[in-house]
Amino acid sequence: MGDGMSAYEQLERHYSEINALDEAASILHWDNSVMLPRGAQENRAEQLAVLARLSHDRRQDPRVGDWLAAARAGSDLGDWQHANLHEIERGYRQATALPGDLVEAKTLAASKCEAIWRDAREQADFSAILPVFQEIWNITRQEAAILSEASGLSHYDALLDLYEPDGRSADIDAIFTDYSAFLPDFLEKVLSRQTVAGNAQALTGPFGVADQRALGEKVMGLLGFEFANGRLDVSAHPFCGGTPDDVRMTTRYDESDFTSALMGVIHETGHGLYEQGLPKDWRRQPVGKARGMVMHESQSLFMEMQVGRSPAFLSFLRPHLLEAFDGSGPGWDLANLQKIYAKVSRGLIRVEADEVTYPAHVILRYRLEQALLADDLPLADLPDAWRQGMQELLGVEPPHDGLGCLQDIHWYMGAIGYFPTYSLGAMAAAQLAAAARQALPDFDALLSRGELAPVLSWLRQAVHGKASSLSTNEILRQATGKPLGVDAFKAHLKQRYLGE
Amino acid sequence: MGDGMSAYEQLERHYSEINALDEAASILHWDNSVMLPRGAQENRAEQLAVLARLSHDRRQDPRVGDWLAAARAGSDLGDWQHANLHEIERGYRQATALPGDLVEAKTLAASKCEAIWRDAREQADFSAILPVFQEIWNITRQEAAILSEASGLSHYDALLDLYEPDGRSADIDAIFTDYSAFLPDFLEKVLSRQTVAGNAQALTGPFGVADQRALGEKVMGLLGFEFANGRLDVSAHPFCGGTPDDVRMTTRYDESDFTSALMGVIHETGHGLYEQGLPKDWRRQPVGKARGMVMHESQSLFMEMQVGRSPAFLSFLRPHLLEAFDGSGPGWDLANLQKIYAKVSRGLIRVEADEVTYPAHVILRYRLEQALLADDLPLADLPDAWRQGMQELLGVEPPHDGLGCLQDIHWYMGAIGYFPTYSLGAMAAAQLAAAARQALPDFDALLSRGELAPVLSWLRQAVHGKASSLSTNEILRQATGKPLGVDAFKAHLKQRYLGE
Repeated sequence: MGDGMSAYEQLERHYSEINALDEAASILHWDNSVMLPRGAQENRAEQLAVLARLSHDRRQDPRVGDWLAAARAGSDLGDWQHANLHEIERGYRQATALPGDLVEAKTLAASKCEAIWRDAREQADFSAILPVFQEIWNITRQEAAILSEASGLSHYDALLDLYEPDGRSADIDAIFTDYSAFLPDFLEKVLSRQTVAGNAQALTGPFGVADQRALGEKVMGLLGFEFANGRLDVSAHPFCGGTPDDVRMTTRYDESDFTSALMGVIHETGHGLYEQGLPKDWRRQPVGKARGMVMHESQSLFMEMQVGRSPAFLSFLRPHLLEAFDGSGPGWDLANLQKIYAKVSRGLIRVEADEVTYPAHVILRYRLEQALLADDLPLADLPDAWRQGMQELLGVEPPHDGLGCLQDIHWYMGAIGYFPTYSLGAMAAAQLAAAARQALPDFDALLSRGELAPVLSWLRQAVHGKASSLSTNEILRQATGKPLGVDAFKAHLKQRYLGE
Repeated sequence: MGDGMSAYEQLERHYSEINALDEAASILHWDNSVMLPRGAQENRAEQLAVLARLSHDRRQDPRVGDWLAAARAGSDLGDWQHANLHEIERGYRQATALPGDLVEAKTLAASKCEAIWRDAREQADFSAILPVFQEIWNITRQEAAILSEASGLSHYDALLDLYEPDGRSADIDAIFTDYSAFLPDFLEKVLSRQTVAGNAQALTGPFGVADQRALGEKVMGLLGFEFANGRLDVSAHPFCGGTPDDVRMTTRYDESDFTSALMGVIHETGHGLYEQGLPKDWRRQPVGKARGMVMHESQSLFMEMQVGRSPAFLSFLRPHLLEAFDGSGPGWDLANLQKIYAKVSRGLIRVEADEVTYPAHVILRYRLEQALLADDLPLADLPDAWRQGMQELLGVEPPHDGLGCLQDIHWYMGAIGYFPTYSLGAMAAAQLAAAARQALPDFDALLSRGELAPVLSWLRQAVHGKASSLSTNEILRQATGKPLGVDAFKAHLKQRYLGE
């Protein structure tokens, strides 16, 4: 075993094996959501637990540390190989930092909490989940302290780093503070303008599932999705999983409304295109993976917000919609379709929010999870703090906690430090789109003709092909001239919602 | 790790992990045939190779030998635990006997040979495959010699044992000699009787795929298939895979003929019911697996030949067919349906053969693979020997090798010793059905009312619940009073095809 291989080659072989295990698990996770008979969940959980354990064992194998040291000492490595060592080292540090007991305790608490959360949300009963939720936070604080110790990052940043490598709350604070100051006036203006323009007219179905699927697949193809390396199926909660060679996208269909499944498919296609565009030669290695959650979300939101909902693309899409659904009448006018896809409102639910108010939902969660982690906010006070935050940020208050602090699964499954990546992704998408418009001066004309190839090719070169060889900010710097900021996003919103 | 666990408990834990790896691979194999985008085959092959390697590593882990010895020395084990040790020992002996180089050489040669075979069959060109096929045989001879050395079995039996534990050619010889003597006269009589009765009238479609699927699932349910623990999908080559808790059956639909998909579904349901009926507490252990290929095929053929094609069950099925396909006219008469499902002919192709002539196809292959293994027949002479054998056994000769010795994939992927299990399964099915008729005197009445629960419950107790705790012959002895023989099969054929 390993005779004649350099330390670097040993690492590559080791991580190829980890990759195969993780990919197998990824397909089985997809199968869980799309195919699994209901009586087979426990059976599947056993399979996934073994795959996860074997993968984790390999990630913390002490030989990785030795190979890393020896490979660093070598001198004949290229840039991507050095970047690969950098990613391997980050993963090794994270995998070895946490004691097995703590990881297991968190897994256990998270699965217990997640189960109770479903009922608690249904009953809008925060007190029901408080004890086990407290456990999640206790464990997470320990986790953050240990990861902080190992990395030198702050407690919060040490968690954030798990989802967004090199993400720092100092940068996020600046961006979110800026946006919170911008939002109130801007939102007011948008809503007044909307009132003047009048409500969109709803399109009435039924819209057959087969027609919706055919339309969705057609649009995926137009955006550049390769069906030789992926597929579209149905699941209760849409997602994009699988592997770069085998992208598994899902959606769900509502026969009374096609608009949300269609835009959902466009969103997931953005994720799928990123995966399919990762450099083929590096797919088995850490450096060849998607950069992080911010960049991933930037790709789905690029396709949804910058392409899919744009007036130019909607004008291209319109005849396809008419054809798919035999549409007729004023509801199918371009102006009405634009209204449908650019509706803004002060809502209570993050996943239903428009792109203007969405960051407010995220900012609230970001502030609260920081306070909770630092123990500045007693967990029992979360519902009140939530109501107060919603009032301040959006001027609305949930009538009960089911529409308030119980609405999202993330915290209850132990994902702390994840939320900001959604809005940072939206901002990165806007920044990338502004750069793409400069690189492709006929950007809108391309969209209005449904010619996405030049846009995709720009993203391939600017983002997809870079994989994890550079940090998020460095990728953005090379593609847009700047690290992640909020200006392009605000400009995009002003342009789309106020016509400025 | 393992502190305080007995050697036996260590073995159970070790084999639970192997089981989870093998189950994950089984679902991914299903996915290959049903879901995989065409560009993802190489990617999937990598995942499966890693899972297979990790499983094999564990099967030949030297600790298994130590644990086995220590567990044997213990005295507080029950019957199933002893039987589990017996199965573990067999697997350990097989896994450790073969040197890794040989296994790898065979995998390589098999995948090379399989690829060439597809074209060679298409072109009916045996010479094209001869060199790599020779390699398969050279390796298989080495494999057989090593396995024979390790087990004390003959070379052929050592290979047979991989598919049918404790299967012995001495027993098979007796059964096949008997059947070869029986067949010529019997076949002649059946064909004359058929000529007198006249041909079946073909049913003309189209038969919609959705209607066929709905009918197939209805019949699966009637036979006792649990959809909470399994599903039916579509693949080019129908099979039954997955896990006992998650049975993945497939079929393929032909809009011009529903009869073959329907009977195919009934066949695969027999496999599926066996898996679903394995004892829940032992599913992760070797003793809890299906007994072997003979018993597995006996279960599919029980459902297809003893239940599905029986006049009693067809009379129950008829109104469901009429309803599913809006059938009308004399083609849908029970007498005609029976003719369709009991057609016998001297054909060239095994997979299209009826149950009367099927064993002749198998006997030919059984004799030839023994001769080839012993080097009594030069490989280059196989096509001639095939033609001669078909002439002797069935009185027909293939016009070219595509319809002759190139028709089946088995040998070309290195599966030698597999073929006899098909016909032994048919005979076991007949023997079990005869016993079931004695235990349930209203057997035919139950079938004609579609009441399969008592039949399934008999199979659960007689076969499924025994898993691998006993040998095939011991299971048959307890269920039917005799080891596997040919008499019940001949009696079944005489009854069905001559009314005797």
